[in-house]
Amino acid sequence: MALKAFDPQEFRRALGTFATGVTIVTARSAEGRPAGVTANSFSSVSLNPPLVLWSLAKTSLSLPVFQAANHFSIHILSSTQEPLSSRFASRSQDKFLDLEIEEGLDRTPLLSGCCVRMQCRTVHQYEGGDHVIFVGEVVDLVRTDAAPLAFHGGKYAVVARKAAAKSLVKSADTDFAEDGLGYLLWRSYFHFRAAELERDPANGYSEREMLFLVTLFYSNWRSAAALAYKSLMLTRGMDEVARTLASLEAKALVVKRTDERGRVLYGLTPSGRDLALNALAAANAVEAEFLNRIGPWDGIALKNLLKGFILETNTSFPYPLDPSEEEPD
Amino acid sequence: MALKAFDPQEFRRALGTFATGVTIVTARSAEGRPAGVTANSFSSVSLNPPLVLWSLAKTSLSLPVFQAANHFSIHILSSTQEPLSSRFASRSQDKFLDLEIEEGLDRTPLLSGCCVRMQCRTVHQYEGGDHVIFVGEVVDLVRTDAAPLAFHGGKYAVVARKAAAKSLVKSADTDFAEDGLGYLLWRSYFHFRAAELERDPANGYSEREMLFLVTLFYSNWRSAAALAYKSLMLTRGMDEVARTLASLEAKALVVKRTDERGRVLYGLTPSGRDLALNALAAANAVEAEFLNRIGPWDGIALKNLLKGFILETNTSFPYPLDPSEEEPD
Repeated sequence: MALKAFDPQEFRRALGTFATGVTIVTARSAEGRPAGVTANSFSSVSLNPPLVLWSLAKTSLSLPVFQAANHFSIHILSSTQEPLSSRFASRSQDKFLDLEIEEGLDRTPLLSGCCVRMQCRTVHQYEGGDHVIFVGEVVDLVRTDAAPLAFHGGKYAVVARKAAAKSLVKSADTDFAEDGLGYLLWRSYFHFRAAELERDPANGYSEREMLFLVTLFYSNWRSAAALAYKSLMLTRGMDEVARTLASLEAKALVVKRTDERGRVLYGLTPSGRDLALNALAAANAVEAEFLNRIGPWDGIALKNLLKGFILETNTSFPYPLDPSEEEPD
Repeated sequence: MALKAFDPQEFRRALGTFATGVTIVTARSAEGRPAGVTANSFSSVSLNPPLVLWSLAKTSLSLPVFQAANHFSIHILSSTQEPLSSRFASRSQDKFLDLEIEEGLDRTPLLSGCCVRMQCRTVHQYEGGDHVIFVGEVVDLVRTDAAPLAFHGGKYAVVARKAAAKSLVKSADTDFAEDGLGYLLWRSYFHFRAAELERDPANGYSEREMLFLVTLFYSNWRSAAALAYKSLMLTRGMDEVARTLASLEAKALVVKRTDERGRVLYGLTPSGRDLALNALAAANAVEAEFLNRIGPWDGIALKNLLKGFILETNTSFPYPLDPSEEEPD
């Protein structure tokens, strides 16, 4: 067969399709200077003896330190340590500035807050083209349950467990399946909402009423139009907004007053405020329960993806909880 | 400092926190026997020359083949190739049975449907404890845009781009922030729904009406109770179900008939069916547009996480699109 020519750019892109975690590897020079580099070339090698490897570019300023060191420390980074990763990926001379450092074997700098920290004894340095492959025997290990940072396609990423092979789609004879994104979003929200209602069965208020109460909880004394805008209820029409407000007034959860400019503003009564707080507490409790069911790592990934989805799919909607946001009068 | 003792189990767990892709590496023996193993120990080594590495257990039945081969091929698996990964991770003698195989250098078996396929010339075999480290020079490269399979914490996983540092939470003075899962689900669904309505502004039917039409589209001729059950609308009360059905009848989208057992069943009229089809087409169009905005890989991850969320958070709700499901009469 004919070989396919490829350029370094294409090779880099190909390597990027292989997802990895992110590590920072540290060591200390004989003169006492700490060295540290970000690497995603980490790989496990052997269980017995416990060996791991990583590669460092021959052009790296830190290469001499790692070549001379008898020990190095590998830190598998957590999802919150993206800034640390970027810092150690730079050519900065002050990578350790203001970091809280412990000292390990040979005074190797040890970082905290990682998923895993492994102290290694250097056992091999192998030739690897424009890199050196370092193989270390793990002699000390600290592990936490923090969610890991991932790297993929040249970007930071998060990993999420794959859903069980058991699919939601049970009917095969149609193109429109239970696989639809709109359906999945609707149903996920429905599960959440049902659990909220179950937690507080005596509640009895409509979703729209609760939406207004919570919106007013964050920014009290709003005009009907501002409230509708903030709650993303403008699309429903002002008739329905007025009906919902009237119902809340009748239940003594909301009162209105007229401000100095003659505008009619709505605000929470003490019992309206209590009800909003209860609703928020119930939402937090359901979230804790559900995140426990799907696992904390998937929880981080799901919330992260939903945030990205919200930011990407509509930029013109207001954010209800942002008190600084412009709103119509 | 005192070293922390650790057992092989703990070492394995620590290694599992480092996310990886999944590869299958193949070669052919001098006698013509194909060999292939699943490996997540892949790592990039050098750009110039283009080198990669992976490790194979010394106990592997395929070791002699890889040690003798002048070439091997590395396949970075796509998210749909989980079954292939499991097959090549087994000790089966028939791993290649019924697979469509191309032949590469030295007749190395080449698999299809992968993210990346790299043919490599074996350049080093390094000692690595209970494993051998194979370093290969990439001489041929094929890349696709398929989403990759990942592996993490001993389970198959998917990767998703991390959301921009820009957060949705703009108000810092409260515990209850725009970070809440219920809020994120509600708002994501709202964005989806708003885009559907924008696509078909003349629609004018309520969400509940459309829900019934689509449910009947999948399983026509249902009792009001069965329809409410299938549509997850039982919680709303049968009064509202009856009102929605009456409204659909008045618009000639739904008709009722009495079956041989005297039950009143509801079914779609031709125009009801057309409307359901239009709604499903609009949902598909919005999905395509939104998945394009967040990118196909994040789309796969998001849908995957929502499915897991739905399956984990409530097991008692019915699935509307499942025609085989039991339902109340």
